[in-house]
Amino acid sequence: METRAKTVSKTPLLTGHSVEHKRAEIRAYFHQTFSLYESLFDCINSDQAYYLRAEPLRHPLIFYFGHTAVFFINKLLLGKYQTQRLNQRLESMFAIGVDEMSWDDLNSGHYDWPSVADTRAYRDQVRQVVDTLISEMPLTLPITQDSPAWIILMGIEHERIHLETSSVIMRMLPLEYLDAHPLWSACQDSGPAPENSLLSIPAGTVTLGKPATAHTYGWDNEYGQKTVTVGPFKVAKYLVCNGEFLSFVQAGGYQEPEWWSQEGQQWLAYTGATMPRFWQYRYGEYLQRNLLQEMPLPLDWPVEVNYLEAKAFCNWKARQTGTHVRLPTEAEWTVLRNQLDTDQPHWQTAPGNINLEHYASSCPVNRFEHNGISDVVGNVWQWTESPIDGFPGFEVHPLYDDFSTPTFDGRHNLFKGGSWISTGNEATRYARYAFRRHFFQHAGFRYLESNSAEVPVEPVNTYETDELVAQYLEFHYGDNYFDAPNYPKACVQTLLSHTSGLKRGRALDLGCSVGRASFELAIHFDHVDGIDFSARFIQHGFQLKETGHTRFAIPTEGELVEFKEVSLHQLGYGELADKIDFVQGDACNLKARFSGYDLVFCGNLIDRLYDPTLFLQQIHERLNAGGYLVLTSPYTWLEQYTPKEKWLGGIKVNGENVTTFDGLSAVLSQHFTLVAQQDVPFVIRETRRKFQHTLAEMTVWQLK
Amino acid sequence: METRAKTVSKTPLLTGHSVEHKRAEIRAYFHQTFSLYESLFDCINSDQAYYLRAEPLRHPLIFYFGHTAVFFINKLLLGKYQTQRLNQRLESMFAIGVDEMSWDDLNSGHYDWPSVADTRAYRDQVRQVVDTLISEMPLTLPITQDSPAWIILMGIEHERIHLETSSVIMRMLPLEYLDAHPLWSACQDSGPAPENSLLSIPAGTVTLGKPATAHTYGWDNEYGQKTVTVGPFKVAKYLVCNGEFLSFVQAGGYQEPEWWSQEGQQWLAYTGATMPRFWQYRYGEYLQRNLLQEMPLPLDWPVEVNYLEAKAFCNWKARQTGTHVRLPTEAEWTVLRNQLDTDQPHWQTAPGNINLEHYASSCPVNRFEHNGISDVVGNVWQWTESPIDGFPGFEVHPLYDDFSTPTFDGRHNLFKGGSWISTGNEATRYARYAFRRHFFQHAGFRYLESNSAEVPVEPVNTYETDELVAQYLEFHYGDNYFDAPNYPKACVQTLLSHTSGLKRGRALDLGCSVGRASFELAIHFDHVDGIDFSARFIQHGFQLKETGHTRFAIPTEGELVEFKEVSLHQLGYGELADKIDFVQGDACNLKARFSGYDLVFCGNLIDRLYDPTLFLQQIHERLNAGGYLVLTSPYTWLEQYTPKEKWLGGIKVNGENVTTFDGLSAVLSQHFTLVAQQDVPFVIRETRRKFQHTLAEMTVWQLK
Repeated sequence: METRAKTVSKTPLLTGHSVEHKRAEIRAYFHQTFSLYESLFDCINSDQAYYLRAEPLRHPLIFYFGHTAVFFINKLLLGKYQTQRLNQRLESMFAIGVDEMSWDDLNSGHYDWPSVADTRAYRDQVRQVVDTLISEMPLTLPITQDSPAWIILMGIEHERIHLETSSVIMRMLPLEYLDAHPLWSACQDSGPAPENSLLSIPAGTVTLGKPATAHTYGWDNEYGQKTVTVGPFKVAKYLVCNGEFLSFVQAGGYQEPEWWSQEGQQWLAYTGATMPRFWQYRYGEYLQRNLLQEMPLPLDWPVEVNYLEAKAFCNWKARQTGTHVRLPTEAEWTVLRNQLDTDQPHWQTAPGNINLEHYASSCPVNRFEHNGISDVVGNVWQWTESPIDGFPGFEVHPLYDDFSTPTFDGRHNLFKGGSWISTGNEATRYARYAFRRHFFQHAGFRYLESNSAEVPVEPVNTYETDELVAQYLEFHYGDNYFDAPNYPKACVQTLLSHTSGLKRGRALDLGCSVGRASFELAIHFDHVDGIDFSARFIQHGFQLKETGHTRFAIPTEGELVEFKEVSLHQLGYGELADKIDFVQGDACNLKARFSGYDLVFCGNLIDRLYDPTLFLQQIHERLNAGGYLVLTSPYTWLEQYTPKEKWLGGIKVNGENVTTFDGLSAVLSQHFTLVAQQDVPFVIRETRRKFQHTLAEMTVWQLK
Repeated sequence: METRAKTVSKTPLLTGHSVEHKRAEIRAYFHQTFSLYESLFDCINSDQAYYLRAEPLRHPLIFYFGHTAVFFINKLLLGKYQTQRLNQRLESMFAIGVDEMSWDDLNSGHYDWPSVADTRAYRDQVRQVVDTLISEMPLTLPITQDSPAWIILMGIEHERIHLETSSVIMRMLPLEYLDAHPLWSACQDSGPAPENSLLSIPAGTVTLGKPATAHTYGWDNEYGQKTVTVGPFKVAKYLVCNGEFLSFVQAGGYQEPEWWSQEGQQWLAYTGATMPRFWQYRYGEYLQRNLLQEMPLPLDWPVEVNYLEAKAFCNWKARQTGTHVRLPTEAEWTVLRNQLDTDQPHWQTAPGNINLEHYASSCPVNRFEHNGISDVVGNVWQWTESPIDGFPGFEVHPLYDDFSTPTFDGRHNLFKGGSWISTGNEATRYARYAFRRHFFQHAGFRYLESNSAEVPVEPVNTYETDELVAQYLEFHYGDNYFDAPNYPKACVQTLLSHTSGLKRGRALDLGCSVGRASFELAIHFDHVDGIDFSARFIQHGFQLKETGHTRFAIPTEGELVEFKEVSLHQLGYGELADKIDFVQGDACNLKARFSGYDLVFCGNLIDRLYDPTLFLQQIHERLNAGGYLVLTSPYTWLEQYTPKEKWLGGIKVNGENVTTFDGLSAVLSQHFTLVAQQDVPFVIRETRRKFQHTLAEMTVWQLK
């Protein structure tokens, strides 16, 4: 265990009293990480092995050997902390991994990889550059996300992630290419599978998310805050061990589609899997492949499977027991984690098989127990039912804007708790990593029994990337440009100034788009209906009402984007959601129940209707006596929305120019009196530099 | 002649000392015109005749009977001088004529025309409404284009035009439908054709265009000013009379394609014409159809033909004489007209068969002679070689924006001088009417002999209606919006402020579009080359340089447009044209001769190139030592212009965000030093209410 102790380190605190001590601590952490990473590759006894594609979904190990060094340089260049490339070719080849590929999306690229020696020489160069930078960089405490030390820590923690993922790939290399290594020795203990049992956990409330004030480095997806009410459940004492999982395998679990999700069945069909990835069955015996050697299947070690296999096991187990068996959600896992009141870097000794403090492999599932539950952290990662999502308040780090956001797609599930090789940030309570559900890591699972068949996960709040919808989200909820005030707010304020005696009962926001005016009207009215023709748009108003927040990505330049989040709370609409209904509907064919309004507001609607005259002829029926109709529009008629023969204006009629205002007046004058007419400007951002700047005309009409 | 005298009137002066006298004068002029028009229709003895389509390219006479009344109402409504329609149905049916149709574009619409009695009753209503309006309208003197009296005069003069065009249609009605009428009696005199002869006219200079200060009503196309140098020519003493034209007919002129233009041949093929439209050949005798009766072909009356026939005659005549025979241009006609020093409304008696002062028909061509030339004005209109165009300074009248502009298309030729039935504005010297070249009116021609085969007409300055090109013309030469200064000017001023020591020899404006920056640079440089990839755009820079002005129409709302004209003179570039060459070219493949520049300016070019890197790698070769490269761009990359793999930035490279500025710097740093970087805003108008508002980045690079 003496050699093992050398590998132990802890992620530095961002705080401290001495800048130079902190500088020294960071330098030590950097070199320790760089060396530890290289020591893993030292297990490889032949350069040839660096180029094998043991796993067709991943690059060969040579990529990962170079990648963690290149990452430092590329991020330092992006942050302008470094001005020169060291090696243009290597810094391009080693830049982009393929971790996120689907199993049916094989990478068939040909790579002319550099030699191991060249790569090692490059690593040495980088080590020197980073060392110098650490020595010379400006440093104040505490370290914040915009300081150069944060980028150094980002590079270090990034390398610690790849320490783990590279070790997974090495578990797939033929053993002949690997030698034993004193730092990387596996646990030697194994025995019969312990009998699993269930512990009752009472209902409670947990708060998820790493506080902005936390004192350790975190990845963007860890921050923000979300409070979740968790119902009571019964949880398995042990992670599912190889022995427990073997029953499923021997019961023909891999051959029975019933236990597998549709995605699981597709994966089975593609891989032909019949047992976990690191098992083998040879000469009547099950074996397990560890990092550097094989052993007879250790029945009391945790099984290592992907989410799809874990879920299939649960479904099978549920049938066996007649109960609702499933994986924990992120919140349920957190309830268990909260029973453990220590965390890296504060613990003296790891409270589980984690941080390389105990083994360079898994160990029996009954080795580390706390409050009756084993392996709350460590041993293997624990899959959850929760697709990864940003917490409310999530913000992308500008120098790594694709670390998390591409995984907020509902197809990446979180696992929690860390494995024996999870170190640094990975070994902290807030660490959240997510992979596609078919991916293998040093990951297994614990199951629970729920009162209900329902799995309490929320749909993922994906980033709206539809360019038009995202434009409108920014238009309604984003920044102001060219001094034009927020348009939906300005419209509501302006219309209120022109509608004396307006009753504040029911309001209709027709053509509500992504909904800002509906919220704004709800400040003043008892009830607001927001109606839009397009589900693509109105879903965001609906989502804001239901979940309190929504997200979108807007172009900055070319294909580059900026990520944005809005929340009702920040907008000051926290208490208004119950006053609003968002409904998909057709302004020209409104359902009868949409009537009895004191106000009908149509923002930028009239020139997007397929029959504006029909709409205007009927709308008076929806208003209460003395009610107001308010229209705003830039009168941008387009044949894609409105056939030319239906345009209200902007046309020649009987040879004479007719403006839209003329046309509006002609149709509305029967039932309405015009009480105000005013320009209201608005700006829609297309890119960081290009905007639509428009002057809408507001006309205010009172029912005669 | 007593009855004829009653028909004589004169267009009122816009000036005067007594408002009430002027009001009375206008009222009298209105009623006189309205009654005169009705008296023409009184010649029709059967309501049935109102519905015949004597001429398939025109509406039946019932349309024209109603149309001149409806015109008053529609224009008064448009001008907001009238708020209510009198009769929605009639005001729609009688609104739009088909005067401008081509012969192969027959109107096959079905019309449910109203009765003559209803139309007459409607006319009575209108007469009352207009009479009341004249009595009650605010009136100050002089009358200006924005006063209600102008609209009344517009309606009156419009009716006087249709007095003439309706009389042409009546000449096509079968005689059985027409009765003699004391007001509409033809000239009774005819005799042998006089021998024509040629008079020498010395070279000179004429100024065309009605001064803005003129004291009579004018149509928009009459205003503006153009000075033309006219070479010497010999002009025919007489209009070509029937006798002279008969030689051409009898020589087989209508059967010989050689004399006819391509357009003339197409017209011949379509109509099968063998002689002028109002001639007939029956029982061995040529006859002429006048307004209300036929007569044996009066050989000494002017022949009435369209432009195509007149031109064919000239071509035949040229061959006969071995000289350059053609029609006069507008300027040449004006030289002749300038010999007559009186004009309506100032003359006591018309100096020709015009203004209904003499006959309700043509008369012999030797009846009115002045300085040796007969029929300088009157008898029949005289076709010219000039397609109608607006003079520099032309402005559309906002209440009648399609009176002239649709005819500025190179397919409408002017005729001048007026006919026996030309009254009011038509009988003034500045009157200019144009019809398609195949159209018939009471129109004939006078020929001249020129020294040269060249016809001195300029290409028509058509309105640019291509939406994108027109947008750019407004962007470069039009109004400023949202306080953003003119962009090409601002670019030049800004780049001059950042280029100390810049030599002022040769400058290159690459991607010059419609050319404003080239003119602006020419203020400061000895020579400027303006190069653009698109001929659609650069043609306007070229046209400005060559002719001093260009025109375009920009959308206001929907399909409605606003007409604009720019001139070098107004822009202050009057003396710069010789310093600029505009050439179509490819920035990525510049011809060798484009080099030796002190400045290369690329305004909004870089993100529109198909290979921006190639361009940037080579451009240093075009600069003199110490020269500057100035780029401005909003970095709006679009795959329609630049394949994504060629984008300079706005992309991820090796997984990291690369901005366009990063990309520019990487390529240019070998040969250039960055000396300045600054935002420059610009606004492009799409409609009256919708704009693109953009922040370009200017980067200034000096050659190392």
